[in-house]
Amino acid sequence: MANNNDPQFVKEIADMQQDFPQWYTDVVTKTGMVDYGPVKGTMVIRPYGYAIWEIIQDELNKRFRQTGHQNAYFPMFIPYSFLTREAEHVEGFAPEVALVTHVGNEELPEKLVVRPTSETIIGTMYSKWIQSWRDLPVKINQWANVVRWEKTTRPFLRTSEFLWQEGHTVHRTAEEAQEETLTMLEVYREFAETVLAIPMLTGRKTDKEKFAGADATYTIEAMMLDGKSLQSGTSHNLGQNFAKAFDIKFLDKDNALHYPYQSSWGVSTRLIGALVMAHGDQRGLALPPMVAPYQVVIVPIAAHKGGVMEKVAEVADRLKAAGIRVYVDDRDQSPGWKFNEWEMKGVPCRMEIGPRDIENNTCVLVRRDTHDKTPASLEGLEDTVKAYLDDIQHNMLLKATAFRDSHIVDVADMDELKAAVDSGNFARTMWCGARSCEDAVKERTSASSRCMPFDQTPVGDRCVCCGKKLSKGEGYTIYFAKAY
Amino acid sequence: MANNNDPQFVKEIADMQQDFPQWYTDVVTKTGMVDYGPVKGTMVIRPYGYAIWEIIQDELNKRFRQTGHQNAYFPMFIPYSFLTREAEHVEGFAPEVALVTHVGNEELPEKLVVRPTSETIIGTMYSKWIQSWRDLPVKINQWANVVRWEKTTRPFLRTSEFLWQEGHTVHRTAEEAQEETLTMLEVYREFAETVLAIPMLTGRKTDKEKFAGADATYTIEAMMLDGKSLQSGTSHNLGQNFAKAFDIKFLDKDNALHYPYQSSWGVSTRLIGALVMAHGDQRGLALPPMVAPYQVVIVPIAAHKGGVMEKVAEVADRLKAAGIRVYVDDRDQSPGWKFNEWEMKGVPCRMEIGPRDIENNTCVLVRRDTHDKTPASLEGLEDTVKAYLDDIQHNMLLKATAFRDSHIVDVADMDELKAAVDSGNFARTMWCGARSCEDAVKERTSASSRCMPFDQTPVGDRCVCCGKKLSKGEGYTIYFAKAY
Repeated sequence: MANNNDPQFVKEIADMQQDFPQWYTDVVTKTGMVDYGPVKGTMVIRPYGYAIWEIIQDELNKRFRQTGHQNAYFPMFIPYSFLTREAEHVEGFAPEVALVTHVGNEELPEKLVVRPTSETIIGTMYSKWIQSWRDLPVKINQWANVVRWEKTTRPFLRTSEFLWQEGHTVHRTAEEAQEETLTMLEVYREFAETVLAIPMLTGRKTDKEKFAGADATYTIEAMMLDGKSLQSGTSHNLGQNFAKAFDIKFLDKDNALHYPYQSSWGVSTRLIGALVMAHGDQRGLALPPMVAPYQVVIVPIAAHKGGVMEKVAEVADRLKAAGIRVYVDDRDQSPGWKFNEWEMKGVPCRMEIGPRDIENNTCVLVRRDTHDKTPASLEGLEDTVKAYLDDIQHNMLLKATAFRDSHIVDVADMDELKAAVDSGNFARTMWCGARSCEDAVKERTSASSRCMPFDQTPVGDRCVCCGKKLSKGEGYTIYFAKAY
Repeated sequence: MANNNDPQFVKEIADMQQDFPQWYTDVVTKTGMVDYGPVKGTMVIRPYGYAIWEIIQDELNKRFRQTGHQNAYFPMFIPYSFLTREAEHVEGFAPEVALVTHVGNEELPEKLVVRPTSETIIGTMYSKWIQSWRDLPVKINQWANVVRWEKTTRPFLRTSEFLWQEGHTVHRTAEEAQEETLTMLEVYREFAETVLAIPMLTGRKTDKEKFAGADATYTIEAMMLDGKSLQSGTSHNLGQNFAKAFDIKFLDKDNALHYPYQSSWGVSTRLIGALVMAHGDQRGLALPPMVAPYQVVIVPIAAHKGGVMEKVAEVADRLKAAGIRVYVDDRDQSPGWKFNEWEMKGVPCRMEIGPRDIENNTCVLVRRDTHDKTPASLEGLEDTVKAYLDDIQHNMLLKATAFRDSHIVDVADMDELKAAVDSGNFARTMWCGARSCEDAVKERTSASSRCMPFDQTPVGDRCVCCGKKLSKGEGYTIYFAKAY
């Protein structure tokens, strides 16, 4: 791909303090992660971005298997009539679905929906497959593209087409469905913290913010470096809503037919946007080692000198054999140019090897998170680099957590709430539960409710909006924030 | 999922000699590989089928990486005008493309094509990314769903939506593009033989059968057990056709702008259909170990007796640790019922462990390909099973190759050709090269040209159709067969 030959090209990234949205756009496009597709609102995920997505897929697949799920694939085209069977669902999705009406010159007898999500088509199949309690639970996941037409779009964060996974499970009892819903939320939280090094607030969505068709939606919410929230994954308890709409019934042990209980849950390519905005800095992207396509990039110094490239190749082979993702940058560019490029691309560890290092049987390691530079012996380098990468991973989570925790402010009234979110914080507060109050907060502060955390310890005794006095057990502890 | 409780349910599979198409349908649906989607011509790939697809993906990704390719993802929606830029391409695909005309209630300004293949959208992006010879080669692969509306559909073999990979490369010279085209054909051939245990005829397609927009199409063709051919993968030399249509130009070393040369290549979920029809038998599916979701299924005998399930678990853990894909069938069904089920599902190796085996420190192995039953010591079982699976893999390729080779008949005229293909053979013959002769063969025998093999040793001296005398170097050695 085309490279910019100006050694100062990092300066082309907008100042993140001055213009965070432009900084984001610069980082995702100039690092070769993404480009704009020709149809408005679509994106091309370029190899560097897609490699991150593949690592995310591998890590999640591992966790889905461990929790007893299997992958499958359902058709993308859904008869329009299916969408209308669940009343809330059609209301939520109808305005933004893409419709196939023709094939070649022929009009189709029924228009088809390009899936915005697959509850309806999967429900249809489940009604065919499930007959008895012996068939339960069904725990299937799908990796797929989905389409939701959006007015305002940004690469990874909100695009007309995106990639995601959607889990769809069916259970005998309400308790099992609720347990599954929360288990998968916890899988997401643990994955995000362990792999992406992003701490997540978890909790339940308000009715206003829940999935169209669910009884309850749970969410993982991440704080971006501008203090906005990014909903990063959701897990829904669907109750019997879709079972009733799609006539999924099973013969239970009591020899009577019952509707089962369902869950669904998903994360998407949006997570790549979360990585950018949770860890990036003025020099560009900063990737946690666990999700970095290249964990180590080796830049040869004085590459033309005898023995340098041989030593570089030997070190690279050793690290690869130890399971470390290594790239040797042997391009015909100056080391300084390469340093800038790989810093911008967020590679966790840069390794420099030159004639003097070879003499001393050492190399130089530079870490992306702190920019610290340190020499390392080539002896036992595999273990050194592994520990080094572990430390970077750990430090990035600590840093993101400290940032997040220092940007959560408890507020008691609307002025405090507005001040908090306007200066890049999440506001934690009390809410009486009325939709009118939630709407008023949005209108007056442009902050939306993010979640009601599982820990419902009160942080006050009045609703932040209407000021209603809340007695014990009344109202909700809740987070409000501006959001992507 | 629902299980059939009749121990004789294997009898529900149609007789493959009597009704091969019904046998195929029974096998793919009753093994839980696939189901029909609600929209005509679509399929649901169920977990057992999808697990095979995931193994195919892993094996191909390994080979694509080794040959220097990277994965990426391009938008599914293509502006209709893009399709029309390459004249042959639009002619080939326009009648079968699904068109998105509306979002919600709003009509789109330009109708969108749901990708039937991605040359046009990828060409558009390449024209933006490629400026100089330094940017070449570009070697990108995409895993995606594609849509081609079909009148007659069959699961895996021909469906309106299917999953595939499509490689799209760009090169400085015509020679490099041709080399890439043939390299990827060879990757497919080696993969199919090594992993799927299916021997492939390779060669070039006639102009009639080539990809719409290519200079030349190369193919891997497999023989199914009914003697029909299944085109299993294609690799296209696109020449400069799409570069010209999409204005992809690069500044070469001579400081002048040139059009580069391109290739594209793909295989799809059709390969799962190939597996079924190349290896199956009257009892159902037979999977080569390398592509089997479960390579070994352990069926406990007298499972209720003390120590049996413990030993089974211990053996399973040992095999798993050795990298073997194992499933323990501990369901509450009789061993005989389980034997039938796993035979139908094509598991390469069944292992039986009962109290007497435990006493003798042995188990019983039964192989799916030959139905041979043999005792094996539990000592060193990992190595025994690995060798056993290798032998099954090897034997399945040998068997399929012997079948294929014994069903290729050299023919000299139309009567012989018709007799050969009507009795389940491929016909190898000479063809003058005229489209009219190729069309006449199709009309009179329903056989189509499959490929002109790389080895062009003549097998006669007259065109099979028009009888024209072919002098040295004139005409083509070619395969005709009925085909899926």
